[in-house]
Amino acid sequence: MNDWLPFRRLALLGFGLIGSSLARAARREGLAERIVCADRSVNVLDVARRLDLVDEAHADPAAAVAGADLVLVCTPVGAYAEVGQAIAPHLASGAILSDVGSVKQVAIRDLGPLVPEGVHFIPGHPVAGTEESGPEAGFADLFRDRWCILTPPPTAGEAAIARLAGFWQRIGSRVEVMDARHHDLVLAITSHLPHLIAYNIVGTADDLETVTKSEVIKYSAGGFRDFTRIAASDPTMWRDVFLNNREAVLEMLGRFTEDLAALQRAIRWGDGETLFNLFTRTRAIRRAIIDAGQEEAAPNFGRRPKGAVRKD
Amino acid sequence: MNDWLPFRRLALLGFGLIGSSLARAARREGLAERIVCADRSVNVLDVARRLDLVDEAHADPAAAVAGADLVLVCTPVGAYAEVGQAIAPHLASGAILSDVGSVKQVAIRDLGPLVPEGVHFIPGHPVAGTEESGPEAGFADLFRDRWCILTPPPTAGEAAIARLAGFWQRIGSRVEVMDARHHDLVLAITSHLPHLIAYNIVGTADDLETVTKSEVIKYSAGGFRDFTRIAASDPTMWRDVFLNNREAVLEMLGRFTEDLAALQRAIRWGDGETLFNLFTRTRAIRRAIIDAGQEEAAPNFGRRPKGAVRKD
Repeated sequence: MNDWLPFRRLALLGFGLIGSSLARAARREGLAERIVCADRSVNVLDVARRLDLVDEAHADPAAAVAGADLVLVCTPVGAYAEVGQAIAPHLASGAILSDVGSVKQVAIRDLGPLVPEGVHFIPGHPVAGTEESGPEAGFADLFRDRWCILTPPPTAGEAAIARLAGFWQRIGSRVEVMDARHHDLVLAITSHLPHLIAYNIVGTADDLETVTKSEVIKYSAGGFRDFTRIAASDPTMWRDVFLNNREAVLEMLGRFTEDLAALQRAIRWGDGETLFNLFTRTRAIRRAIIDAGQEEAAPNFGRRPKGAVRKD
Repeated sequence: MNDWLPFRRLALLGFGLIGSSLARAARREGLAERIVCADRSVNVLDVARRLDLVDEAHADPAAAVAGADLVLVCTPVGAYAEVGQAIAPHLASGAILSDVGSVKQVAIRDLGPLVPEGVHFIPGHPVAGTEESGPEAGFADLFRDRWCILTPPPTAGEAAIARLAGFWQRIGSRVEVMDARHHDLVLAITSHLPHLIAYNIVGTADDLETVTKSEVIKYSAGGFRDFTRIAASDPTMWRDVFLNNREAVLEMLGRFTEDLAALQRAIRWGDGETLFNLFTRTRAIRRAIIDAGQEEAAPNFGRRPKGAVRKD
């Protein structure tokens, strides 16, 4: 990794939370001589210019990728086919084309066939984010200590994979290479299903007629508010995730529903032992996540740490 | 509230996260001349003495309540009948007997019939907590800006209710009076069902054979880790909640499952509009919770706020 050289031109297509965080991180670490973005929203381009996050901000993705040696697609995955059509004729030979989408088989399906000879296509997914959206919500440290999963096709060159991995490592990420199909299964349980369930329970609460909306809001500190944070994530991004990882999400949802039916039965029949055993087992997983550096140990339900008032 | 006088002797029965936080808060605010606790765990009593959180620490709850003018039961709700039997003959006339349990009809069912004439019985529930347990995890600010719900029986005296409400207000809580049955319904959706679902998905993930435990842990930042925090809550307390609020939990679970089936169908049939509409609607509820002071606005998925490293 010591002979790693900056890219000449980094093109970020889609400039929301992830794209703008990448611009900030890449600039801070000096990973590209020139950083450019494209976005179909005029407002987003205005923000990119006003905050001076990029060297060029384009409405046309083709203009952004021209001459770029690293192109990262940062749009919702449902836009990949359209973006791919727009940029394919303009991709420079020798360039690396990657993305940050939460589903990887769709990147291979919608972008893969459009990639010209001589361009290195290596789909990627940084497992990082916040419940906020848009370029103003981004920050350079978003990827620090998080995992970035690369799912290169079998034909991808080792040198290009190593170069892209070096980029992610330099902005603080750990890199793992994985088969795209397996990625989609893993993320279905660690990310997609949690979001689906959170969206669902918030919707259920919103629809009740026996409990008022005001009561749901006032007494949300009992656990519900943590679900609303997840359910505040970007609607377009998440719609596209579920539409494009259908098979794996339905598989995990089926298992979840089965297990929930068993819990429901335990409650109905007063089977305290089944409940207690599950509730004890789940504690160990949290401990392992903290030990793996993927979570802070400090309790968060109290929100304000002991006695202090947070300023942020 | 200006003529509010401290209690002479506050007895906390059960000295875990909530009981010990009450001791800290009551002492800091000078709300009782003497604060005593009882717990059946020798270790817990040792901690209470070592940290100097109380004036007396008893193994026998009867010894703690003797002469107390405020008694707060802070055990899991499944222990109420036993605690009630032990203390009933020793309760002082004119004392207020309350509790902090997450289910209120069970307090009325298991404690109510044992309360001697002349004792004011007013069940209560502070909607506050963390994912940690035990007296070392407590802190005085736990109840600040949180709601405490009182569910007095129709016969309860106004003066006793006002006096108990004053206690909670002085440790920073807002107080609401509610019917016990309605309380149990409201908390079933804002607290009990979220916990059940979190426990369930963590169990589902733990059981998978196609995704390894190490993968679940590594890629948990995509949403799953937030569920593990909720699923790290105290197993005994939560077993007792589900066994004692069965009807309301099953009602809310039925609605949740119905709604989830509709979402499942939308995913299977590629109905992006249904998904997008739900995902947009849920954002508004989070905004309302933040506006109501029950949640911080700062994004938490990034965990470390922009560029900073938390010291706690």
